[in-house]
Amino acid sequence: MASIVDITMAKKFVQLLVFNLTLTEIVLSGNVLIWPTDGSHWLNIKVILEELTQRNHSVTVLTSSTTLFISSSPDLLVDFEEIPVSVNKSYLESLIEHMIIMWMDHKPTPLTLWAFYKELGKLLEAFFLINVQLCDRVINNLTLMARLQRGGFDVLVADPVTLCSELLALKLGIPFVYTLRFSPASTVERHCGKIPAPVSYVPAALSELTDRMTFGERVKNIFSYFLQDYIFHSHWREWDSYYSKTLGRPTTLCETMSKAEIWLIRTYWDFEFPRPYLPNFEFVGGLHCKPAKPLPPEMEEFVQSSGEDGVVVFSLGSMVKNLTEEKANLIASAFAQIPQKVLWRYKGKEPATIGPNTRLFDWIPQNDLLGHPKTKAFITHGGTNGIYEAIYHGVPMVGVPLFGDQYDNVAHMKAKGAAVEVNMYTMTSADLLGALRAVINDPSYKENAMRLSRIHRDQPMKPLDRAVFWVEFVMRHKGANHLRVAAHDLSWFQYHSLDVIGFLLACVITAMLLVTKCCLFSYHKFIKTGKSIKRD
Amino acid sequence: MASIVDITMAKKFVQLLVFNLTLTEIVLSGNVLIWPTDGSHWLNIKVILEELTQRNHSVTVLTSSTTLFISSSPDLLVDFEEIPVSVNKSYLESLIEHMIIMWMDHKPTPLTLWAFYKELGKLLEAFFLINVQLCDRVINNLTLMARLQRGGFDVLVADPVTLCSELLALKLGIPFVYTLRFSPASTVERHCGKIPAPVSYVPAALSELTDRMTFGERVKNIFSYFLQDYIFHSHWREWDSYYSKTLGRPTTLCETMSKAEIWLIRTYWDFEFPRPYLPNFEFVGGLHCKPAKPLPPEMEEFVQSSGEDGVVVFSLGSMVKNLTEEKANLIASAFAQIPQKVLWRYKGKEPATIGPNTRLFDWIPQNDLLGHPKTKAFITHGGTNGIYEAIYHGVPMVGVPLFGDQYDNVAHMKAKGAAVEVNMYTMTSADLLGALRAVINDPSYKENAMRLSRIHRDQPMKPLDRAVFWVEFVMRHKGANHLRVAAHDLSWFQYHSLDVIGFLLACVITAMLLVTKCCLFSYHKFIKTGKSIKRD
Repeated sequence: MASIVDITMAKKFVQLLVFNLTLTEIVLSGNVLIWPTDGSHWLNIKVILEELTQRNHSVTVLTSSTTLFISSSPDLLVDFEEIPVSVNKSYLESLIEHMIIMWMDHKPTPLTLWAFYKELGKLLEAFFLINVQLCDRVINNLTLMARLQRGGFDVLVADPVTLCSELLALKLGIPFVYTLRFSPASTVERHCGKIPAPVSYVPAALSELTDRMTFGERVKNIFSYFLQDYIFHSHWREWDSYYSKTLGRPTTLCETMSKAEIWLIRTYWDFEFPRPYLPNFEFVGGLHCKPAKPLPPEMEEFVQSSGEDGVVVFSLGSMVKNLTEEKANLIASAFAQIPQKVLWRYKGKEPATIGPNTRLFDWIPQNDLLGHPKTKAFITHGGTNGIYEAIYHGVPMVGVPLFGDQYDNVAHMKAKGAAVEVNMYTMTSADLLGALRAVINDPSYKENAMRLSRIHRDQPMKPLDRAVFWVEFVMRHKGANHLRVAAHDLSWFQYHSLDVIGFLLACVITAMLLVTKCCLFSYHKFIKTGKSIKRD
Repeated sequence: MASIVDITMAKKFVQLLVFNLTLTEIVLSGNVLIWPTDGSHWLNIKVILEELTQRNHSVTVLTSSTTLFISSSPDLLVDFEEIPVSVNKSYLESLIEHMIIMWMDHKPTPLTLWAFYKELGKLLEAFFLINVQLCDRVINNLTLMARLQRGGFDVLVADPVTLCSELLALKLGIPFVYTLRFSPASTVERHCGKIPAPVSYVPAALSELTDRMTFGERVKNIFSYFLQDYIFHSHWREWDSYYSKTLGRPTTLCETMSKAEIWLIRTYWDFEFPRPYLPNFEFVGGLHCKPAKPLPPEMEEFVQSSGEDGVVVFSLGSMVKNLTEEKANLIASAFAQIPQKVLWRYKGKEPATIGPNTRLFDWIPQNDLLGHPKTKAFITHGGTNGIYEAIYHGVPMVGVPLFGDQYDNVAHMKAKGAAVEVNMYTMTSADLLGALRAVINDPSYKENAMRLSRIHRDQPMKPLDRAVFWVEFVMRHKGANHLRVAAHDLSWFQYHSLDVIGFLLACVITAMLLVTKCCLFSYHKFIKTGKSIKRD
């Protein structure tokens, strides 16, 4: 394995040659270490690191040898440092498939979350072990650590869904920046980032609630926060001891996470309900969005053949490959009844009921299709990346959420009037047809999707530029301490002013006791004395 | 008085001729109505409206006929609509002078604020009457209102220290944007804008506390919030009935203020302690800051004559013109003992103790002096505008606060390590000399001032551009509803989840009662029955 320092130096000269950059620009560039999370998370962080390389920074990605999406490619001017782990790819895939199936069978609600959590226990334990192994093999590998030290990194950019980046940054003595979609019930953001979340109008992530809740929903919301906080805290316990051991002093995972300089949250007010936040939180949702490119000729021809009716795009994302035959037929027969042409990303067997207006594709250029003027609707599983592409292009949605945060994502789009939800497991052909006809024919869905698109596009600065600005800010200033709230230095009872309230209550009670005592004394002194005088 | 519509149309054509703009640009421009507040507030809003005219918008300023600072000028391409009020300028000046003298004699602390407020009662009443008169003569002047309606305004930009802009915007059916430095204890921002302010680390405005408080200071902070909230609420009562009467339905001042689309706060994290805020709050402090221009030749010569020692700039702002002879002598004798040259903005009699290194000026180009490389320190009364110029240019300060928010402003700069405070009323020559020597000779003050300067200058977007962006956003989209938190639609007990907490407590108590009852029942049923069986 080549030394990171060598690679970094070599890269700088390659950049000098390839981009014809001046020496000043080279000198001004920095070194960025990336600690990514696999899956769709990688797609998002990849956009940031591509922009960082465009801006002449040297980027090194630290990742396990077993990944699903994270990989080098010739167009990516990035160094990969692979950490060998004893888990093979097929085992990882089976674990994830297991998780998806479990989720699809037992969709967790705030009330069933506990049972769901227990059932997922083994799986979470496996993930924990993989993460610990990765962490061990970085932190305890003295040769690697020495090489990273020599790499002269200015900042570590991490997706905190994979833990340990904080330890690495502290060990290397460099600041770190988080890029994060959410943690369940915002537990990490609230407890470690100190972002306030009034339970009366900030719905817990995954709760599928909106910012306008009935009394019953607000009760549900409080339970949702309680339960998810409890789960997190019990999960954290294992990491607390690991972090304390590694740092050689008593600490907690949360305390270490709280040292993040900037939190780049992958949503914005087009998707998110407006809520309080802090100066070191930046909402950069949809930073991967970009204008559509022309479609492949054959696909363009198919799309154009739809005439005035336009097309519908259907994708369940990269995780779900096949459906049962029954489900596929049900969907295909609904599609056969609409005048639009349908582009369906599907790797399974062609359904028997497929209409002449529907075409199956192994892969679709989703962003280019959503940006096509003929596209009337997007049927989506509700992943954040896909939803953001639909928002960017102003396309109304039919949400068929399957697992994870997809239910919550679709709930957001429903609340904003840009989507209709269909239950994938109970739906009939008529349900899907009804939903599709609604979003295509009722102009309010298109109007709302276009409103979200305008909100997304009309920002003071593009989300990607803001994200990269703050990464570079941390590099330039070795942190962003001026944005860090003093709440981090308060205990929980100080934060909630319980000591002050207790003191004031004690004062009031003491005052009341004194007054009562004085009254009683006066009563005894004067009334009783008066009586005895009278009696005399 | 020429019709606003006529003026607007005429101005567009003048702009077309003067700036050689294309018709498309003219069509894209909008009409902005400004409701300013006098004094230093005007200097700030003026920068925004100058930028708006630069961007081709037609700007109309609505103001009373009696103003101190607000005035038209040939370089200001703005229409002024003057509302005649029955208060003359000299009376207004005497009121303000009275207020300054009162403040200087009885500097209010959280504990003396109540007495101060009572003493200020008459003055506040006078201000209230002036504001009501201005409001009456706008809202009830049907001719003026009809003209304003015809003016086709897209947005109203208001400084809410002068009330009534909200009523005008509602009557005209246009959105409004606030530009505001602060309200005491952030009462308006908290109650009407719904910005959260955890009392444990967000110091009440005017409290002179920082974000890092001892237990005693946190007690003081809570009192500060309570007291200032109470004062505001008692002050609001009069306006509540006025607003209800004008709008013809029961409402409150606060409810009407809560409809502001955007709150442009005139501070940033260089000055402010980091705190939670909301998506429709933008911190645009120092939007008036700009690079220094060359000094007048004579002044430049004096500055250059200071050699390596450099110069000190001293100004007490535009409100305080003279000092007592004793105070002026005390200050001058301190200046005479430093090696720096001193530029003192002072209109009073030349002090007898003045040294050869000190020169008095009726007026100084403050920003250009602060931006001069020879400037070593700035002695300031602590107005926000001056402090921001010092931050921008990285000049350490000696704060001699006099009244209003100046004590609090200087407390911020002290906490950030960029200033030393001297008490104007009790100081000796040695105190001032010591403070001056500290900020000039102890490098930490210069370093901290430079750190604040870097924070101020290294933002994703300049404060003025952000302020104008959001004004234009509101014009383009007829509001910014997507940034408005749902908290506005909750009652205070719903907001604090008191109904949910009450319900959960009731559930717990009911459950406990039921369990106790069951236990008692079981006890009676089984134990007593058992005993009676035994007895049998």
